Amino acid sequence: MKYAIATLGSHSALQILKGAKDEGFRTIAICKSDHAFVYRHFGVADEIIEIPSYSDFHKVEDDLIKRNAILIPHASLITYIDLRVIENMKVLYYGNKRILHWESDRDKQRIWLEKAGLNLPKVFKDPSEIDRLVIVKFQGARGGQGYFLARNEREFRRKIGSAKEYIIQEYIVGIPVYIHYFYSVIRSELELMGFDRRYESNVDGIGRIPANMQRDLKVTYTIVGNFPLMLRESLLPEVFRIGQKVVEASKEICSPGIYGPFCLETVVTPDLKFYVFEISARIVAGTNVFMETSPYALIKHGKPMSTGRRIAVEIREAIEQDRLKEILG
Amino acid sequence: MKYAIATLGSHSALQILKGAKDEGFRTIAICKSDHAFVYRHFGVADEIIEIPSYSDFHKVEDDLIKRNAILIPHASLITYIDLRVIENMKVLYYGNKRILHWESDRDKQRIWLEKAGLNLPKVFKDPSEIDRLVIVKFQGARGGQGYFLARNEREFRRKIGSAKEYIIQEYIVGIPVYIHYFYSVIRSELELMGFDRRYESNVDGIGRIPANMQRDLKVTYTIVGNFPLMLRESLLPEVFRIGQKVVEASKEICSPGIYGPFCLETVVTPDLKFYVFEISARIVAGTNVFMETSPYALIKHGKPMSTGRRIAVEIREAIEQDRLKEILG
Amino acid sequence: MKYAIATLGSHSALQILKGAKDEGFRTIAICKSDHAFVYRHFGVADEIIEIPSYSDFHKVEDDLIKRNAILIPHASLITYIDLRVIENMKVLYYGNKRILHWESDRDKQRIWLEKAGLNLPKVFKDPSEIDRLVIVKFQGARGGQGYFLARNEREFRRKIGSAKEYIIQEYIVGIPVYIHYFYSVIRSELELMGFDRRYESNVDGIGRIPANMQRDLKVTYTIVGNFPLMLRESLLPEVFRIGQKVVEASKEICSPGIYGPFCLETVVTPDLKFYVFEISARIVAGTNVFMETSPYALIKHGKPMSTGRRIAVEIREAIEQDRLKEILG
Repeated sequence: MKYAIATLGSHSALQILKGAKDEGFRTIAICKSDHAFVYRHFGVADEIIEIPSYSDFHKVEDDLIKRNAILIPHASLITYIDLRVIENMKVLYYGNKRILHWESDRDKQRIWLEKAGLNLPKVFKDPSEIDRLVIVKFQGARGGQGYFLARNEREFRRKIGSAKEYIIQEYIVGIPVYIHYFYSVIRSELELMGFDRRYESNVDGIGRIPANMQRDLKVTYTIVGNFPLMLRESLLPEVFRIGQKVVEASKEICSPGIYGPFCLETVVTPDLKFYVFEISARIVAGTNVFMETSPYALIKHGKPMSTGRRIAVEIREAIEQDRLKEILG
Repeated sequence: MKYAIATLGSHSALQILKGAKDEGFRTIAICKSDHAFVYRHFGVADEIIEIPSYSDFHKVEDDLIKRNAILIPHASLITYIDLRVIENMKVLYYGNKRILHWESDRDKQRIWLEKAGLNLPKVFKDPSEIDRLVIVKFQGARGGQGYFLARNEREFRRKIGSAKEYIIQEYIVGIPVYIHYFYSVIRSELELMGFDRRYESNVDGIGRIPANMQRDLKVTYTIVGNFPLMLRESLLPEVFRIGQKVVEASKEICSPGIYGPFCLETVVTPDLKFYVFEISARIVAGTNVFMETSPYALIKHGKPMSTGRRIAVEIREAIEQDRLKEILG
Repeated sequence: MKYAIATLGSHSALQILKGAKDEGFRTIAICKSDHAFVYRHFGVADEIIEIPSYSDFHKVEDDLIKRNAILIPHASLITYIDLRVIENMKVLYYGNKRILHWESDRDKQRIWLEKAGLNLPKVFKDPSEIDRLVIVKFQGARGGQGYFLARNEREFRRKIGSAKEYIIQEYIVGIPVYIHYFYSVIRSELELMGFDRRYESNVDGIGRIPANMQRDLKVTYTIVGNFPLMLRESLLPEVFRIGQKVVEASKEICSPGIYGPFCLETVVTPDLKFYVFEISARIVAGTNVFMETSPYALIKHGKPMSTGRRIAVEIREAIEQDRLKEILG
């Protein structure tokens, strides 16, 4: 029986489903009923399975199994579906499920990134230690809402309110760069897909307000979209090296490690160092800026290739080589 | 006799003419004499009709009629050619001419957008009512020149000078997002073409000047260019819904309503609401960022498709189905 | 014997080599040993010649000559290889070598741009003359490191430290726009390839920090990457005109003048004037944002065409017409 490729209708589903069709797969979108019309419109899904709300996702499991579907995870799946539900599903799943625990927990993420030997922003255990500009983040915050900046303990106390679970991170002054990777198990190779810069509300709007009009402004970090970005080519060796280190460290902490698409969320400082403040252990929405093709994958593969399509190529090659179980988590 | 596609040599003419050629049309560019060399260079126009200045535009009408040309409007046409000249021209015209009155008048625009039930920035009738950050705009200002910010009546009085016709609009703190739509009469369907972010001088440069160096800076909003942008896929249902509401409201106010390309100019707030501060009832220059292809139209149509080419597809299908008069205004 | 195309593995080498392969050339990358893996990964080089460090570059000359290679210069070549080494190399070299002296010296550059009649930022001979916002730059600074802003002599004195060789330039308040040109000797025609906006650390990050958090911030201008940008089409006539003036002025100062790719680094003011603050007399990294295709070249040439590929087209046509020596410097 032939395989189908399925994903939740959100985040990067258009790219994933389009890529799967380009590689000859049957495609399935699981959509909240009020989102289904979008996927119907674009015609990327051979079948749309509607669910009233994300909490009904587990009910589609049998349907997916019957259709021999391989489920492709993305941030909306991880955010809206309980981790335990995902873990316990018997449906074929692309990726290492156990890595999700390492991604979803800030402390474990830090252990992973430290093991990889990357530059990380300093973390302050106690507000009294704040001696520079810091950003205060919250566990499980969605899309950066609620984050705030402070330069000392006094400012921290004034802004923290009643929040108990927070992390105080050095605010690295530099520019945000999001790096899209793809680690291929079938080809044993790390590929670079591209770069983007997130577009966050309202923080990416405040620079348009003159300093003397900014009084009482509260900065927020809600992700709204992404801009395509290209990096200096002389930085590519370092970009590959840090990606490779992340892959290797992941093998130690969580065999067989991370594979498929992932993203390092970095700030690049004036001395051209990459400070990594987060890792996304699956496809990121930033890859949508290269929905037509990743510029690097175009060169590498000799034809237009989005990250979504790259996933489908990996699965197709795994099937052809009878190695599918190596890339199912 | 075969149809030709004609447009004024400016704004998005390269895209329109290239798209028309891709769909097999003969193309005509009407150019100011000192701009003609650009269109000659790119070879997108089978014929270039030169005019000494925009005020001579009406003189080409007979030429266009003789060539069975369909004129495609864009912002430069609307800005440089008097509305009454456009209305009285007998040349075939793509789009609903009467919508131009609704677009060119801020008050009518607001009625339209309110009827569509969209989130709009608050408008202050009197300077004494200013109780938050506002932006003061002028009727018919080209490209945002002269706009200014104020936080209270005193600041307003200091900056307004002798201007009499102005509008005081709430300054929504968020990030600008421009949404490109295409409403197809022939397929009875609203399509999403893409998103851009305008690049305005000097406002998009002031964020590069440290706060303590910004003294006496005068902010201006002259449009210089556009950046390609992709939005979070989870926002697409709302993007389609607000576009659909605009189309429906337009049918009420100005039958048969708006069709072809249009753009909603929005600010997205941290709670992911779209505040619409303007509508462009024709192709916007922001679509030039997708001159090669709209990322969404690529998926929808299965081949590269700019907004310019989408217009030509619509006209070609209208001709094939003998429905051309439905899309001429 | 057939020609090969060779370049230093950095900057825009992926684009140059990919473009050369697209036009049927054999390709050679000269790479620092620790960078070679990147070019091996992408498969754009038929041959990779490794060197331990850039100072060994001259040692590959014989290899390149034996392979009948044409060397394509870019900023990394110019930056890392001594100008005299480049001048004295006997290997075939694409471009006018003598123009490098005009590019690498700020004073000569200014003479060139003044001769072209372009708008230039005012230069202050003495710190005591500073009467507006200025940016202070250094000779030979790489990637904008060390630049600073000042509004008067006092601020200048406080920030200058012990530096002796500097230039005090008016800081034009507007938005940065980088214009990519290609002047074809074979077709005697100036082409427009596109526009980008540089992404610099940390200056493009400070706008994300609220004014009241910016205290003690030191602004730096290290180039990290580039964003694709499209300009208002009504500005294209002026864009072509200033490019043409630069080409013509270059013929006077340094016959046969500049040819191939070059870039004007401008700031566009609210009144839509282009102030040119620098010229790059060879391919710029900003063209990497159009690695797949330049939007304008796509229209001009009727197929995807990067600046890298455009170089290869020029060389191919020169060979076909037996005019190669006209484009070797």
